[in-house]
Amino acid sequence: MSIRIGIIGYGNIGRGVECAVAQNPDMELKAVFTRRDPASVSILTETAAVCSVEEIPSWQGKLDVVILCGGSATDLPVQTPEYAQYFHVIDTFDTHAKIPEHFAKVDQAAKKTGHVAVIATGWDPGMFSLTRLYANAVLPEGQDYTFWGRGVSQGHSDAIRRVDGVKDARQYTVPVEAAVEAVRAGKDPVLTTREKHTRECYVVLEDGADPEKVETAIKTMPNYFADYDTTVHFISEEELKANHSAIPHGGMVLRSGVTGWDKENRHLIEYKLTLDSNPEFTSSVVVAYARAAYRLAAEGQTGCKTVFDIPPAYLSMKSGEELRAILL
Amino acid sequence: MSIRIGIIGYGNIGRGVECAVAQNPDMELKAVFTRRDPASVSILTETAAVCSVEEIPSWQGKLDVVILCGGSATDLPVQTPEYAQYFHVIDTFDTHAKIPEHFAKVDQAAKKTGHVAVIATGWDPGMFSLTRLYANAVLPEGQDYTFWGRGVSQGHSDAIRRVDGVKDARQYTVPVEAAVEAVRAGKDPVLTTREKHTRECYVVLEDGADPEKVETAIKTMPNYFADYDTTVHFISEEELKANHSAIPHGGMVLRSGVTGWDKENRHLIEYKLTLDSNPEFTSSVVVAYARAAYRLAAEGQTGCKTVFDIPPAYLSMKSGEELRAILL
Repeated sequence: MSIRIGIIGYGNIGRGVECAVAQNPDMELKAVFTRRDPASVSILTETAAVCSVEEIPSWQGKLDVVILCGGSATDLPVQTPEYAQYFHVIDTFDTHAKIPEHFAKVDQAAKKTGHVAVIATGWDPGMFSLTRLYANAVLPEGQDYTFWGRGVSQGHSDAIRRVDGVKDARQYTVPVEAAVEAVRAGKDPVLTTREKHTRECYVVLEDGADPEKVETAIKTMPNYFADYDTTVHFISEEELKANHSAIPHGGMVLRSGVTGWDKENRHLIEYKLTLDSNPEFTSSVVVAYARAAYRLAAEGQTGCKTVFDIPPAYLSMKSGEELRAILL
Repeated sequence: MSIRIGIIGYGNIGRGVECAVAQNPDMELKAVFTRRDPASVSILTETAAVCSVEEIPSWQGKLDVVILCGGSATDLPVQTPEYAQYFHVIDTFDTHAKIPEHFAKVDQAAKKTGHVAVIATGWDPGMFSLTRLYANAVLPEGQDYTFWGRGVSQGHSDAIRRVDGVKDARQYTVPVEAAVEAVRAGKDPVLTTREKHTRECYVVLEDGADPEKVETAIKTMPNYFADYDTTVHFISEEELKANHSAIPHGGMVLRSGVTGWDKENRHLIEYKLTLDSNPEFTSSVVVAYARAAYRLAAEGQTGCKTVFDIPPAYLSMKSGEELRAILL
């Protein structure tokens, strides 16, 4: 019998989850829940229902795992604890600083009703976190580095769109190659924000907007751009559509550490992702953790979990015997 | 209280484990067991005992985890099931094809006496296996690639030393950069043995040996060299000592896969290790799994485990709260 999946929220992640479920033969998408009028939402999976979020509680017992595809700012802090009352749930909560608080709330809700909730899945947090944890456990004396990009930052693109005179924009985060090379060379560099990443902006102006004013407004924006070397390119709407509508991303986690009685030997661990589609890769991770949640629940486990708590084998369709024979 | 560690076998791995234990403040090395005369073995840790392997059973109750540092060919197939009767044990069994058989024997022995045994730790099998498993779970449609090197292969160096006329030798396994680039470019290449790695040999001849004969004997050796592009460099014993006495290694695991309703997006996962000392890095992994074994045992788990079965958090000195706050 397939693992019956529900999706709440049908944006980039929701659609990515739908595609990922189709690549995993042990799963079946049963329903997509939306805050929009369900009649206005067209999905790809012919056998799945499109329903209003109001119907969610009535699906209890008909779904094995529900995947929450909302945003971390306002959706997930409310939705994950709420729906963990009804289902085993997975989310992609990615506000690193607020994970402990989110964990506590979700853990309480999930334990109360005997559900499993896996939070903060995806690639960062997610695959990158796993790499950091394994690398730190193996090399307790060393330095961690995380670089993001080259890829589209949705948050920074949105910030540019809020500038007066901007019609549309796309922002790429780019790691500074010299910084990466210094890490690889074992120099354990101490890197400022500016030394780690640059920001490339592609901006479509409103008619009559002043490019100089817009450029200054972007480059001096606190938090988002002021601490970075930022370049601004003004392009046409057609060019933005033609060359910047994909959502690639990626990045790398490095740990450089020493071993030996006199710390005489140095080691470098590197993990790198190069992704054509940030939401689809994120969704692929989420779906693997949906399988893990299903198995944890079948064992009788409850409460909130993260990628740190879950045995790797639980993510795979293959049995322990197959995994040991093929992948170990 | 510290986790009390015992080491069986004091070669490169045994010494590496000793160094790694010293880097982990929650552990203490209590004893090193050797088949040699204990009086002839000098270790680095002043507070640990050096004992004969015959004394091992008398240490029951005095050690929390025992790390088996023998070879996979003849030592571990016997030692791991044997000592799993007395202790929680860890090994670095790395004969991939025989892992299922080894697992079954160790599992039986460990379960019988209520111990935990973690086999096949290190980096391949070990960290590379984890990368393969996570990458396969996340990208179910794709291709796996593992490259080793540039690094010293002990097995191939030994094979050269058995050739008539060879006094000493060191063999480096080198990945073919064009093959790695084809994988990175998303070409999903089908690679022959020869296309993936080359072999570089540094050979010291016995007095009067015929270099041409030795070179031919090496290059045509079945399994070890015949299927590879091999280069042989004849050097002096001094040069071998000066330039080739370190034991560096490393390598990379890549998975290239597709997502999207029409498989229209491609993703690349790369994990790369660059290691000054193969045995010390291996030992560092082993020691992290000793911590995990100790915790699994404390929970009442028994039997044989691999890296696939163990939640990542169990490897770390840090608590769940700390991990979520710092590394997630």
